[in-house]
Amino acid sequence: MKDRAPGLRDRLAAIVAGDDPRFGNRFDEAMLIVILVSLAALGLETVPAIPGWLHTLCIWIERASILLFTAEYAARLGTAKKAWKYATSFWGVIDFLAVAPWWLTMGGAGFQAIRSLRLLRILRALKLVRHLAAIDRVRRAFELVREEMAVFGLLALILLFIAGVGIYEFEHEAQPVAFSSIPQSLWFVVVTLTTVGYGDVYPVTTGGKLFTVLILVTGIGIVALPTSLITTGLTRAREEEKARKQKPAAEQT
Amino acid sequence: MKDRAPGLRDRLAAIVAGDDPRFGNRFDEAMLIVILVSLAALGLETVPAIPGWLHTLCIWIERASILLFTAEYAARLGTAKKAWKYATSFWGVIDFLAVAPWWLTMGGAGFQAIRSLRLLRILRALKLVRHLAAIDRVRRAFELVREEMAVFGLLALILLFIAGVGIYEFEHEAQPVAFSSIPQSLWFVVVTLTTVGYGDVYPVTTGGKLFTVLILVTGIGIVALPTSLITTGLTRAREEEKARKQKPAAEQT
Amino acid sequence: MKDRAPGLRDRLAAIVAGDDPRFGNRFDEAMLIVILVSLAALGLETVPAIPGWLHTLCIWIERASILLFTAEYAARLGTAKKAWKYATSFWGVIDFLAVAPWWLTMGGAGFQAIRSLRLLRILRALKLVRHLAAIDRVRRAFELVREEMAVFGLLALILLFIAGVGIYEFEHEAQPVAFSSIPQSLWFVVVTLTTVGYGDVYPVTTGGKLFTVLILVTGIGIVALPTSLITTGLTRAREEEKARKQKPAAEQT
Amino acid sequence: MKDRAPGLRDRLAAIVAGDDPRFGNRFDEAMLIVILVSLAALGLETVPAIPGWLHTLCIWIERASILLFTAEYAARLGTAKKAWKYATSFWGVIDFLAVAPWWLTMGGAGFQAIRSLRLLRILRALKLVRHLAAIDRVRRAFELVREEMAVFGLLALILLFIAGVGIYEFEHEAQPVAFSSIPQSLWFVVVTLTTVGYGDVYPVTTGGKLFTVLILVTGIGIVALPTSLITTGLTRAREEEKARKQKPAAEQT
Repeated sequence: MKDRAPGLRDRLAAIVAGDDPRFGNRFDEAMLIVILVSLAALGLETVPAIPGWLHTLCIWIERASILLFTAEYAARLGTAKKAWKYATSFWGVIDFLAVAPWWLTMGGAGFQAIRSLRLLRILRALKLVRHLAAIDRVRRAFELVREEMAVFGLLALILLFIAGVGIYEFEHEAQPVAFSSIPQSLWFVVVTLTTVGYGDVYPVTTGGKLFTVLILVTGIGIVALPTSLITTGLTRAREEEKARKQKPAAEQT
Repeated sequence: MKDRAPGLRDRLAAIVAGDDPRFGNRFDEAMLIVILVSLAALGLETVPAIPGWLHTLCIWIERASILLFTAEYAARLGTAKKAWKYATSFWGVIDFLAVAPWWLTMGGAGFQAIRSLRLLRILRALKLVRHLAAIDRVRRAFELVREEMAVFGLLALILLFIAGVGIYEFEHEAQPVAFSSIPQSLWFVVVTLTTVGYGDVYPVTTGGKLFTVLILVTGIGIVALPTSLITTGLTRAREEEKARKQKPAAEQT
Repeated sequence: MKDRAPGLRDRLAAIVAGDDPRFGNRFDEAMLIVILVSLAALGLETVPAIPGWLHTLCIWIERASILLFTAEYAARLGTAKKAWKYATSFWGVIDFLAVAPWWLTMGGAGFQAIRSLRLLRILRALKLVRHLAAIDRVRRAFELVREEMAVFGLLALILLFIAGVGIYEFEHEAQPVAFSSIPQSLWFVVVTLTTVGYGDVYPVTTGGKLFTVLILVTGIGIVALPTSLITTGLTRAREEEKARKQKPAAEQT
Repeated sequence: MKDRAPGLRDRLAAIVAGDDPRFGNRFDEAMLIVILVSLAALGLETVPAIPGWLHTLCIWIERASILLFTAEYAARLGTAKKAWKYATSFWGVIDFLAVAPWWLTMGGAGFQAIRSLRLLRILRALKLVRHLAAIDRVRRAFELVREEMAVFGLLALILLFIAGVGIYEFEHEAQPVAFSSIPQSLWFVVVTLTTVGYGDVYPVTTGGKLFTVLILVTGIGIVALPTSLITTGLTRAREEEKARKQKPAAEQT
């Protein structure tokens, strides 16, 4: 199989890698559009109010895009220098999981266990990221603040746990359903510290309210910090790029 | 018409452009006050509790300001070097849309289709921005962080979609009304990731709650980042201005 | 009166200004404690569950602190170089308004109109700021970002208004009570854009939800920006201080 | 007792301090795992739906970890150069409070007064922080912005109080239960200014709504500022570290 059509295989490899002199870039753009259209169909399909023909169209778009994604997966697998390396790489796994559930259920409902695999369809959206050129600076920004992120992530986890146990002790007796267990109380803590505050659970005892005020004062900063950190990281990533560009020029003088 | 009163026309052009030696700046200030008063009347008019005379006054203010805005539009159109260039420019469109709906309905209710045009009245508020001198630095700040904004905008969209499909799969069976479709689920996702959390929809299943926690942890940073980015942009825009001012001085030495 | 006890008057002036060699600083500290204790009493007094003696104690603390604040006001007024200049200064007005309502009602309920003046009691808390030494850098930080604050304040106001009119047009028919008028709709807009989201009002129509998503995407950044701006201001205020300290040293070399 | 086994005691001291040539680091890692497992058991134990054997396992894990923590406390106390210094140090107190409640109640329910001590179990999570190497930079960052934090902390407290008294005056008559007293109103203020907004309390009067808008506009920045401040602190702490590393190199040249 390897030697059957070396010219065609090299061509295909160049196309999916995006550096074919004639089709490379167009393949990239075409796949982007296929992904976007298939995502739109995926969402639209679930709206009960749409007319029948639109629903049928959505299903056919779904089927067509699955075929295309499968063809893309096969092409990438077939043209990769080491097939297993691609299959176990991040994008290889995403590409596989984006189509596998459909083939397992053949687009139908299937068994309960297999049906829950349908959730994996959302991974298709991640395929968009591959086509995002500017993602490198973002990755670099995350790398630059990795350490601080880890520390604040851990501090946040510790705080979450302390808050969960604490609010459970205060509110469990007064609200045995809403604060039925510590894991259940963690739902309240996450909703509170992210400042979402749906209002489905909230403390009613004086002790619980005081404790909530306490964890809000201590915790909001810790939970909101990663955003600030990434901005810092982005600023520094940009400065690095600037310095790298200026260096060769400076060395010449 | 072009040659009837060239002196008057030039004068008018100078006045609306804001550089007439005698009235220029005053016209600017007067229009600012007209806009503010007309906006106040627009809001007040809808309060059921106001007395009749105030309601009538609001309606007359509305009519007077529409006349003034129309006169302004005519003046700008008539004095512009190329009338079509102004008419299709950003401010030309805003100026037109701020008065057109009123003339179409003659201030009355009109047909349903035309009535919905009344929403365009709010564009009048945008006219205020024209009189905002310091808007340039803000625009420059946005320009400086355009790339990062685009990346995070796209990441946010991808995340929104993944979250919408995911929460739909988890909650659709338990809450068929609140999570009736994927577009409907996106309402929940936006309200959650912006941390507004009205409480009209929230997950009730354990899977849905865990998934919500997951998207909160991943997503809040991405959604809140643009604010931090613009601050960075503003800081850099200011530094640019400073450098530009210092350069001529430095070059002299 | 001016000449009766010049020595005593100078002494008093030094004490309230905080630079008396013996009592100056202590007067400052004593007033801080009086303010804090009086604020605590003000709050505690309203709790229905407290025993009678504590309630009586709170009332007496209230009376005593009013006497002390009045004495402080009289002393500052009497020792100021120009009495009217103090009386019309920021702190002079705060000092006056913190005691005036009590004297007008003699601590009792009084007429409805005068009773609403009781709200002015909260100004007493502002008196704490006078004793806050580090407030200068904060004021400088605000000064440094004044321009940006003004621009974003105005943009936020424009956005609020546009959003208020818009959501009113979308939701008024479906929810005539919650969105009864444009000013009423502004309550929804403020609660939404600050991401508080109590859940007392929220859109129910598809158009209203889409419009809310739109204003959230545009608006959150604008509303949240002042916080980032002040941090930038604080950083720059600190750098200014540092530069000012290093300058004399640098000039010597 | 001090002289019975000096070799063993030194060895033990090295192990708990984490610099024993053979076990030091492993002890650290083992304790980390013990803490994590014991925290997981603490949470899981309260879930009503778990099977009986898992509940029993959780209780045994709890007992075993208490024994280990007690042994650790005894080892640290016995090997410390000055036992009292350790016992009164921050970590000494945490180590003690993490086990004391269990011994007092012997894992049972105990008297009401002692049962409330169970809340101290959550301090166990704090023990994790000791094993967090990167915590130093975070501490330094807090130190660097200590002054600003203090100022904004105080401003936030003053604002909270003013807002609490104000909203009480506006809403007490209309909602005598939700705004029953000033301390009760502070709950509303904290939930509002942190933008959590559960929706259990919200203003209903026009005055109350206007006042809430006012405190939101003034207050959100003050409450959200600490997060921005810590990011600034982290950036500066990192720059300090960098400068410290470069200094020796620079001094050599």
